[in-house]
Amino acid sequence: MIDIKYRDPSCRGRGGILHLPHGDVEIPAFMPVGTNGTVKAVKHDSVADMGYTLILGNTYHLYLRPGMEVIKAAGGLHEFSGWKHNILTDSGGFQVFSLAPFRKIREEGVRFRSHIDGAYHEFTPEKVVEIQETLGSDIQMALDICTEPGISHKDALKALEITTRWASRAKKRWENCRDDYEGKLFGIIQGNFYEDLRKRSAEEILELDTPGIAIGGLSVGESPQMFRDYLHYTSQFLPEDKPRYVMGIGTPDYMLEAVEAGIDMFDCVYPTRIARNGTCFTLDGNLALKNEQFRLDQQPIEPSCTCPVCQQYSRSYLRHLFKAKEILGPMLVTEHNLHFLYQFMAEVRLSLKEGRFLQYKKSFLDRFSKRTF
Amino acid sequence: MIDIKYRDPSCRGRGGILHLPHGDVEIPAFMPVGTNGTVKAVKHDSVADMGYTLILGNTYHLYLRPGMEVIKAAGGLHEFSGWKHNILTDSGGFQVFSLAPFRKIREEGVRFRSHIDGAYHEFTPEKVVEIQETLGSDIQMALDICTEPGISHKDALKALEITTRWASRAKKRWENCRDDYEGKLFGIIQGNFYEDLRKRSAEEILELDTPGIAIGGLSVGESPQMFRDYLHYTSQFLPEDKPRYVMGIGTPDYMLEAVEAGIDMFDCVYPTRIARNGTCFTLDGNLALKNEQFRLDQQPIEPSCTCPVCQQYSRSYLRHLFKAKEILGPMLVTEHNLHFLYQFMAEVRLSLKEGRFLQYKKSFLDRFSKRTF
Ligand SMILES: [Zn+2]
Ligand SMILES: [Zn+2]
Repeated sequence: MIDIKYRDPSCRGRGGILHLPHGDVEIPAFMPVGTNGTVKAVKHDSVADMGYTLILGNTYHLYLRPGMEVIKAAGGLHEFSGWKHNILTDSGGFQVFSLAPFRKIREEGVRFRSHIDGAYHEFTPEKVVEIQETLGSDIQMALDICTEPGISHKDALKALEITTRWASRAKKRWENCRDDYEGKLFGIIQGNFYEDLRKRSAEEILELDTPGIAIGGLSVGESPQMFRDYLHYTSQFLPEDKPRYVMGIGTPDYMLEAVEAGIDMFDCVYPTRIARNGTCFTLDGNLALKNEQFRLDQQPIEPSCTCPVCQQYSRSYLRHLFKAKEILGPMLVTEHNLHFLYQFMAEVRLSLKEGRFLQYKKSFLDRFSKRTF
Repeated sequence: MIDIKYRDPSCRGRGGILHLPHGDVEIPAFMPVGTNGTVKAVKHDSVADMGYTLILGNTYHLYLRPGMEVIKAAGGLHEFSGWKHNILTDSGGFQVFSLAPFRKIREEGVRFRSHIDGAYHEFTPEKVVEIQETLGSDIQMALDICTEPGISHKDALKALEITTRWASRAKKRWENCRDDYEGKLFGIIQGNFYEDLRKRSAEEILELDTPGIAIGGLSVGESPQMFRDYLHYTSQFLPEDKPRYVMGIGTPDYMLEAVEAGIDMFDCVYPTRIARNGTCFTLDGNLALKNEQFRLDQQPIEPSCTCPVCQQYSRSYLRHLFKAKEILGPMLVTEHNLHFLYQFMAEVRLSLKEGRFLQYKKSFLDRFSKRTF
């Protein structure tokens, strides 16, 4: 499933190819988020043209709307959405805990109310595997319990223990998927911000021998230092021969940190969400187009960017689109931000291959953090 | 400026080429509306790929936001917006009367308040020519007074007389545009719904010998029968050797009526506006994607449509996008509707060329009006 082609000797960073049912993915890879079966404000063809071959869909959202009957009728999420490459779907656990207006955890699973219409539903580890099998997910995640920073050791332990038992049940159900379903199951390491629990969760999840491993419960509101500490601490337990995924990471600085820790995949709504508000990635930091200073600025968003938007449109015009609330504004900035990140990750991969990742990381962050806007 | 290449002997319909500063336009032509310097929810490249070489911009909107300083700094509306083909801009008159929260007409011009920030502004015929010269409009319209159905003969006459004097002043100012400005001025025929006034306005506007002629004040709330009557009545006065434009027409039935009356150009926000609400043109009438009946429908919007949307997406998926309020919904349906209209107009042109327009019109409307959804 994974071919590690090169490693940077100065850190844990590595690169190569992930082989998935809908084609190969170059890693380390950022995955754009397509919550409802669409990466917001951009056409699938554009996402593919940038080079992306793996995007994320949200099980919780898709299960509630349009619902499994609709996606099943189309033959799965690929056929339904028209996206021809790979899809990773999350377990829905994070959304149940962050979006649902009510949820109750039992050993069997989690009961919750929909944030859309208030209806009651239940996710069990088995049901979540089945949903993702029906979606036709190339990578599917085991149902887990994600906890917030600040909870007690006792509560964190309890969540961890259920997460392990759920992962074990998910694994069993996944082994009984229909023969033509080739999606890979990833277990998720939890343990909150306690080193002993992170270590224990890693051991228990690795014991299950799922095809890939994710680190959950990071980038959930903790300080950057905490994020860094627990990212590096937890990643040391990850095996070399399996893909490693950290959920919820979408800023260049966090991505660089994850790559340094040997992570292969990450996702976040951040790059597309800020785009819809007119905030663009540039090498000099984030640029907020609505600012007065760009009113007459004839430059592209990022002069060195090779994306179609930067070839054709000025900051002045793009600013106007946001001031006039034109849909084309979010469309164009989403395209730029995703293109920018793809190019950024391509440079990250090259620097790993050439054994100069730490140098690349430093020079990128020196400029990016200066934020000249 | 205009090459009439064929006429349908059974009606006034005709077709050919309009030569404009930014390239040729096949007529009769529908012009997508790009109010704020963007056709809403679609990229310029997509609009051009469909075959469109002439779009419309709104002088009133662009003048207020981003304002002339911004567009001038870019070098004009083409450079500002990145649209490489022709742009027709309206005079702003219609918007002053329909959008501004206050307006007062004097002989000199019209004073009004912005619907955006309430600030006072004045449009005179000369100023409106200058604005459109700065925009770099390939076709520009003379400032006019558009009146509603139901006003008295006396009021309609008064509006007509000012419109004529304003058109005359616009013509003088337009003749003194800078040498490198090649945009063409169109006068606008008014006269409300009074035959004598329509005739008189036509005579007075034609007297000015502007490069093109528009019929204004139609499709402003009158009945379809009134529209048809005044369209055919007014169009009989139009000269053969000039392009003819009717403003505010965007449904297939009204377009067919206009083509039959010998009209070469028309525009309307309707096709793009309904798209953002999930309503699609099909050969069987308008299809409202939000309807329950399309929940599991795996067909494309219009099975015979050759647009990229119909090649790739089902009604079921598109319906989901609208239910989930995803931006991709308006994007895809806008693309379909504009593509559908371009193909429709291509068929209209072919039927004119082959002298079977009335037959085409009948068979199209027979099916379209049946509305099987
Ligand atoms: Zn760019
Ligand atoms: Zn279509």
